[in-house]
Amino acid sequence: MTFDPTSFAPAHFRWAFADGVATVTIDKPSQKNPLTFESYAELRDTFRALVYVPAVKVVVITGAEGNFCSGGNVHDIIGPLTKMAMPELLAFTRMTGDLVKAIRGCPQPVIAAIDGVCAGAGAIIAMSADLRIATPRARTAFLFTRVGLAGCDMGACAILPRIIGQGRASDLLYTGRALGAEEGERWGFHNRLVEPEALLDEALATARALAAGPTFAHGMTKTQLNMEWNVSLETAIEMEAQAQAICMQTQDFTRAYDAFVAKQQPVFEGN
Amino acid sequence: MTFDPTSFAPAHFRWAFADGVATVTIDKPSQKNPLTFESYAELRDTFRALVYVPAVKVVVITGAEGNFCSGGNVHDIIGPLTKMAMPELLAFTRMTGDLVKAIRGCPQPVIAAIDGVCAGAGAIIAMSADLRIATPRARTAFLFTRVGLAGCDMGACAILPRIIGQGRASDLLYTGRALGAEEGERWGFHNRLVEPEALLDEALATARALAAGPTFAHGMTKTQLNMEWNVSLETAIEMEAQAQAICMQTQDFTRAYDAFVAKQQPVFEGN
Amino acid sequence: MTFDPTSFAPAHFRWAFADGVATVTIDKPSQKNPLTFESYAELRDTFRALVYVPAVKVVVITGAEGNFCSGGNVHDIIGPLTKMAMPELLAFTRMTGDLVKAIRGCPQPVIAAIDGVCAGAGAIIAMSADLRIATPRARTAFLFTRVGLAGCDMGACAILPRIIGQGRASDLLYTGRALGAEEGERWGFHNRLVEPEALLDEALATARALAAGPTFAHGMTKTQLNMEWNVSLETAIEMEAQAQAICMQTQDFTRAYDAFVAKQQPVFEGN
Repeated sequence: MTFDPTSFAPAHFRWAFADGVATVTIDKPSQKNPLTFESYAELRDTFRALVYVPAVKVVVITGAEGNFCSGGNVHDIIGPLTKMAMPELLAFTRMTGDLVKAIRGCPQPVIAAIDGVCAGAGAIIAMSADLRIATPRARTAFLFTRVGLAGCDMGACAILPRIIGQGRASDLLYTGRALGAEEGERWGFHNRLVEPEALLDEALATARALAAGPTFAHGMTKTQLNMEWNVSLETAIEMEAQAQAICMQTQDFTRAYDAFVAKQQPVFEGN
Repeated sequence: MTFDPTSFAPAHFRWAFADGVATVTIDKPSQKNPLTFESYAELRDTFRALVYVPAVKVVVITGAEGNFCSGGNVHDIIGPLTKMAMPELLAFTRMTGDLVKAIRGCPQPVIAAIDGVCAGAGAIIAMSADLRIATPRARTAFLFTRVGLAGCDMGACAILPRIIGQGRASDLLYTGRALGAEEGERWGFHNRLVEPEALLDEALATARALAAGPTFAHGMTKTQLNMEWNVSLETAIEMEAQAQAICMQTQDFTRAYDAFVAKQQPVFEGN
Repeated sequence: MTFDPTSFAPAHFRWAFADGVATVTIDKPSQKNPLTFESYAELRDTFRALVYVPAVKVVVITGAEGNFCSGGNVHDIIGPLTKMAMPELLAFTRMTGDLVKAIRGCPQPVIAAIDGVCAGAGAIIAMSADLRIATPRARTAFLFTRVGLAGCDMGACAILPRIIGQGRASDLLYTGRALGAEEGERWGFHNRLVEPEALLDEALATARALAAGPTFAHGMTKTQLNMEWNVSLETAIEMEAQAQAICMQTQDFTRAYDAFVAKQQPVFEGN
């Protein structure tokens, strides 16, 4: 059951690996890269596996040919859901939620590189990433309301308000309207915008920069960003005292100090 | 004890109802629409009643003649408060807090249409709405500090930071200064700005669009937006798995799918 | 053990007191105002002492000669840390966290006046303040990752996302990059920007305005801003009903009402 990032060959998305950076590409451009039951499950399993794959230091997730992801396919997913009984429905919504848990649960920072359509579960994947780099053409729609559902899908009512604020999240989740790229940058959803032809290079450069950093510590940052949402101020500070003390016993901390003294750039190894 | 939205005639504010949209107008323009003990209580009771009135699908709240609401009347409210003992004071602050709970607790999305003065408890009502549409003349002041009180009124220290962030909320709550319309849009307090003569039409158009949506699902979105503030990421995701599974058993979900297959617009019925 | 703000003479930073406003100046400009083990401890003890010093109504914290604070000194702090065992490391991270607890725990609003370098623990002190006024030259870097550590330092993963949102906080905490002044204002980290020569005057004017307000109530506002992060909406509203009822029994509330009736400006006394 070992996961070898250099030979991993998923069935339902593309995978690339170089310089410590894994690139996941949702790849069915004829339909703007939809998700299916199978690709949901395989993405979930992949992000879960990454917990135990220290060679992968950062993940970029993107879509093929000018779109990020169109979300759950209407014919493959929504049709069958309309015919299911409650136990099957809950199994499905839990499975999709598990994808978000897996994206947040792996220690690797996840960077979404977003062009064009980013809708439904695609918007959720983007929201679940740590950083979002988009093009001016990106259009992000939490469109669940358009298919008769609630905005509370896969954690959106918890996560989106923490990124863009409760009022703006309410707008997007009630109306299902598309968030434009510049509006998204202004609101803090997109970390920055780059032209489409530069998108993947920019995301990979950012990923490589993070991969060259103290990746054990990055994983601790991610854990704390996940866990400190609903603890008291005093608890958060004690949690960070413990977490940072652990990081102070890594060799990367000593490497940074030694490099500083030697007036050199530190070379981190993630341990 | 039935509440008929077509015949409801409150004593302390105006009420209108059409197309599933109820419009609440605070209406004492000579004093910029203040609140009194009686209007607080009647507003609270009305929003509480709406939990059981599915015919009302969205609520617009606004003020008469160029101002939203000037908050608690100084002579009618503040004067008596300065003479009360603690049990009566606490009864008052709990009653005003209950208005916020009622606005957040009804399943209908609430849209505040804000022109001119929006101060004190008026600012709190605006803050408690799901969406805020304002005019360039809107001036929103959490001015409790100006009357010798704390910024922590009716939930402001919890709700306002989640809309505009902790630093900006601190500024408004400590100083009591007025937030301008454009600043408010830039900060995410106002969802958008429209000219005064278009304000009510714009708010009603937004309300009718939401009323034409899957309103059972909207109510679930609102419940989750309220409840996911202080749960863990994992809990939020499980809560949404359950909430969305419930919505997947509504007929509105099937209506949306059937309409998609038939290449038509869905007609939602809120069930 | 009485703390007299007019005669207090700390060993590791400068202290001034006038008009109810204490000014703390980190003052080692040759090194851009670093922190040492001793200055950390003295700052912590000072903010802790302020809980019992009602004469001090507002605190301004700043740095000498064009920089705010460069954080923990590399030679004085980071070097020794690389040689410590876990119990000593945890004692250190708890001590630094205690500074944040002390800044948040005193009832006085704290205003950070930020010019130039604001890095590491300096950025944390700025983040822990209630308000941040900066110059166009301010550069704020949560640079822990640059020294091989995690972004979760002294509460940053809890506090920073609540000020600027989760996505932007993730950017700063993973990369360690400097936040520019205008970007920081746009994001809500800086409340406003002023030219360097006006910085201290502006911070002091803001501080004096708050000091002239109902300072008992300000302390309640601060307490509630700290405590309502991880409670439910209903709990927050009940907490504020109690907190505001307490403030309604202060004389400042009556003073405000009496002044209003007399068409005068109220003179608050903080009781």
